[in-house]
Amino acid sequence: MEELPGAFGTSASLTLRLGQIVFSSASLCFMCLDVGFYSYTSFSFLVTVMGLAIPWSITLFMVDAYSVFIQCLPIQKRLILIIVLGDMVMSYLSLAAACSAASVIDLLHEAGKSHCPAKLCGRYQLSAAMAFLSWFLSLASCLFNFWILPSL
Amino acid sequence: MEELPGAFGTSASLTLRLGQIVFSSASLCFMCLDVGFYSYTSFSFLVTVMGLAIPWSITLFMVDAYSVFIQCLPIQKRLILIIVLGDMVMSYLSLAAACSAASVIDLLHEAGKSHCPAKLCGRYQLSAAMAFLSWFLSLASCLFNFWILPSL
Repeated sequence: MEELPGAFGTSASLTLRLGQIVFSSASLCFMCLDVGFYSYTSFSFLVTVMGLAIPWSITLFMVDAYSVFIQCLPIQKRLILIIVLGDMVMSYLSLAAACSAASVIDLLHEAGKSHCPAKLCGRYQLSAAMAFLSWFLSLASCLFNFWILPSL
Repeated sequence: MEELPGAFGTSASLTLRLGQIVFSSASLCFMCLDVGFYSYTSFSFLVTVMGLAIPWSITLFMVDAYSVFIQCLPIQKRLILIIVLGDMVMSYLSLAAACSAASVIDLLHEAGKSHCPAKLCGRYQLSAAMAFLSWFLSLASCLFNFWILPSL
């Protein structure tokens, strides 16, 4: 089987996982820096999803790092299937969380400054944007691994 | 290749497509029955996405119906790949639309009756619920076709 850049065990995959960790953590930090997010269901949902996405990305980052730097791991069909399904679930969840947070921010922004002070609102927007980027990288990982699945 | 119930060209797939058409149309109707949805970005997004999902499901419903009732179509790898990718895009979009609509409805509900009269709010909630069901069926179609892809 040829190696596809971005699929499991390549350095491109390592970069994608690193990006996912960075963006998910940034999204979580921007949202959690004050306790106000608890008042809104969708912000809590975003925090929960990012709290799930970070350990998933870190695990796969470590496996990829092991495969790239120490010893090339054998690529098994079952392993790739689990990674593809996990990435798919994670990407669905992050897109859902990002979209619901973004729509609530949009509504709060329209409702006026009393509901959403400029500084806080900007931070929520940054958090949603980071969640979108994390979704995009997670989707990329999912599609690259999905692509090599038929050839295994 | 064995036939998998739910994959392209089977009667289970026909049922899934029919469900998608019914739920997407119901979601669109519940949202569009008054013109108030234009004021909210996420409601307009839901209407746009459902307006894309309906023709996609109808096309695949007709192809499936042809394959089941008239003449069994040959299953080509390229065709299944296009269907899987299309279903994936559609399911991402419907989940995003359903989530953003649901979170906005939740916020409007909390804001009080002036923003969201009980009757109108109930209809918006029904619309979001239908969009979730449509997403679920779309995901099922995507996964069934994805499953047969490696064996082609």
